[in-house]
Amino acid sequence: MTEYRRWTLAKHPSGVPDEDCFALVHFTPDALQDGQVLIKTHYFSLDPGMRGRLSGDSYAAGLKLGDTIESAGIGEIIDSASDRFAVGDMVMGGLGWTEAVLHPDRGLQKLDPALFDDKVAMTATIGVLGVPGLTAWFGLQDLGKPESGETLMISSAAGPVGATCGQIGKTLGLTVVGLAGGAEKCAYLTELGFDAVIDYKAESDLAAAMAAACPDGVDIYFDNVGGEMLDAAILTMKPKGRIVVSGQVSEYNQETPTGIRQTTRFITHRLRMEGLVVYDYAKQFPEAQAAMAGLIRDGKLSYKEDISSGIEDAPRDYAALFAGANFGRRLIKTI
Amino acid sequence: MTEYRRWTLAKHPSGVPDEDCFALVHFTPDALQDGQVLIKTHYFSLDPGMRGRLSGDSYAAGLKLGDTIESAGIGEIIDSASDRFAVGDMVMGGLGWTEAVLHPDRGLQKLDPALFDDKVAMTATIGVLGVPGLTAWFGLQDLGKPESGETLMISSAAGPVGATCGQIGKTLGLTVVGLAGGAEKCAYLTELGFDAVIDYKAESDLAAAMAAACPDGVDIYFDNVGGEMLDAAILTMKPKGRIVVSGQVSEYNQETPTGIRQTTRFITHRLRMEGLVVYDYAKQFPEAQAAMAGLIRDGKLSYKEDISSGIEDAPRDYAALFAGANFGRRLIKTI
Repeated sequence: MTEYRRWTLAKHPSGVPDEDCFALVHFTPDALQDGQVLIKTHYFSLDPGMRGRLSGDSYAAGLKLGDTIESAGIGEIIDSASDRFAVGDMVMGGLGWTEAVLHPDRGLQKLDPALFDDKVAMTATIGVLGVPGLTAWFGLQDLGKPESGETLMISSAAGPVGATCGQIGKTLGLTVVGLAGGAEKCAYLTELGFDAVIDYKAESDLAAAMAAACPDGVDIYFDNVGGEMLDAAILTMKPKGRIVVSGQVSEYNQETPTGIRQTTRFITHRLRMEGLVVYDYAKQFPEAQAAMAGLIRDGKLSYKEDISSGIEDAPRDYAALFAGANFGRRLIKTI
Repeated sequence: MTEYRRWTLAKHPSGVPDEDCFALVHFTPDALQDGQVLIKTHYFSLDPGMRGRLSGDSYAAGLKLGDTIESAGIGEIIDSASDRFAVGDMVMGGLGWTEAVLHPDRGLQKLDPALFDDKVAMTATIGVLGVPGLTAWFGLQDLGKPESGETLMISSAAGPVGATCGQIGKTLGLTVVGLAGGAEKCAYLTELGFDAVIDYKAESDLAAAMAAACPDGVDIYFDNVGGEMLDAAILTMKPKGRIVVSGQVSEYNQETPTGIRQTTRFITHRLRMEGLVVYDYAKQFPEAQAAMAGLIRDGKLSYKEDISSGIEDAPRDYAALFAGANFGRRLIKTI
């Protein structure tokens, strides 16, 4: 039997997960049971949003010690005891940080090779057409309720959710303002067609910088960060403004989260803040993916992937996400 | 000419407004202009929600020094240069902390004496049928989106907004849990038909007390308080829970509000939080008032008024509201 490697949870982290929290385990897959498939991973993603589940305390579905670290992945069926998948099929699903996985034949999306070409890579299914892109799509449209001419401000705008959200916003006729850290990310957003960009690392007064970039105020704040940046954004919201809580990356690693102070603005400005779990929209995924693939082919939606090889580095690369080091969707190639 | 008294803003408060912030001014009304009426106040209210406007900084419509302190009131037209109102008419409107006011003939509701009887006092129009009651009515129904069988938790539940909200909730088939300070208020809520009551002053762990009172979690949190109580309530919210931000009385007097830390729950539990300004529903007021008057006559909605005489004591009584001293709608009688 072939031996594979997978990363498991060795310690529940507090704060940014360091390498001690993970253990690289060698394993040989069990024999296939009826209704199972064996998948050889090609790519898996590193997801800041999964951080909460590592803590294993307040989350019903948190990871236990010894569990494989969760993530989206793309892989190839290399053995099948299911009539739903044949050897050679490519699939997308929650494969985890692993080189191979024995998986039930449920919760996997078969990838039609015809959907992919030189403009839309198969890795897009765990990026712009996967959870990050779908989060942007449904968060902006279902919770943001955008109307042409409105102003959309996005935090962590150079990340895979934010960059997709901003470009979708442009196709809807919005004025789009992005928050990102550093000149390189800001230049990237300008290239993508963002109307204004705020380099939050270069600003001492974030609320003032937001007000200057959005002189008429913000109708929709698409938030991937939380904490002080969210609190400053609340001060720029127009009456009846909508805050889409997509991610709270500044909060996940804190024992005591920073949170927000400007709750009184919810009354004076009739604000709405609402959180999003993209799986609630699972039935509408194919339609959204087809629409976004169309935007990619039309040159209206571009995406960035940051792919490195080698499962060994996953914990180090994961921690780096929280230092703002990532740029585009962070993937690990395992083949 | 008759001389009257009114309270004006002498200093923008920081923290709980003390008596130095107010000045009692004697005045003689100017001559009536076309389209104006002179109103002799019978009752005015003391509103914690108006506190933000006293600070005069971040609010477009904040009070300036010398302005009459704002409040709802009931009064009698004693002189009229308008064909809309005749001498002797009783009206409700934003009269302010004053014994008399020269008012444009707009923004006043003429009170039909036939609507009032021994069950529904005219003062109800600035209480259960006025801003507090309407805030409960529209906040619960339009933002809370209650469904029969759900659990509603209310902060400051013995106040005029909270007590009304809880009773409306019972008529809609909700399980209603109230937070109030002290045994007397808690007993009052039980009398009103609340299913459970939490005396927050007697609890060291508010989140645990909430979880015990709402073992299946909270669907709707109707919040009049904000800060730590709101943060604890977020931990008891069910997935897809709705937080109605009606008041934030713990926050108004703080230079740096306490705010909330549990924003990550907005993602994990798909929470929605939304603020309310009742005047947005002005066109629907008559219908809501008629419905609530019906509930009062049917014995399904009772209300408490805390009426004292003498305009002199308004600032002291106002400060006492923030110490949790009030019980029911706080009114000053000026005749």
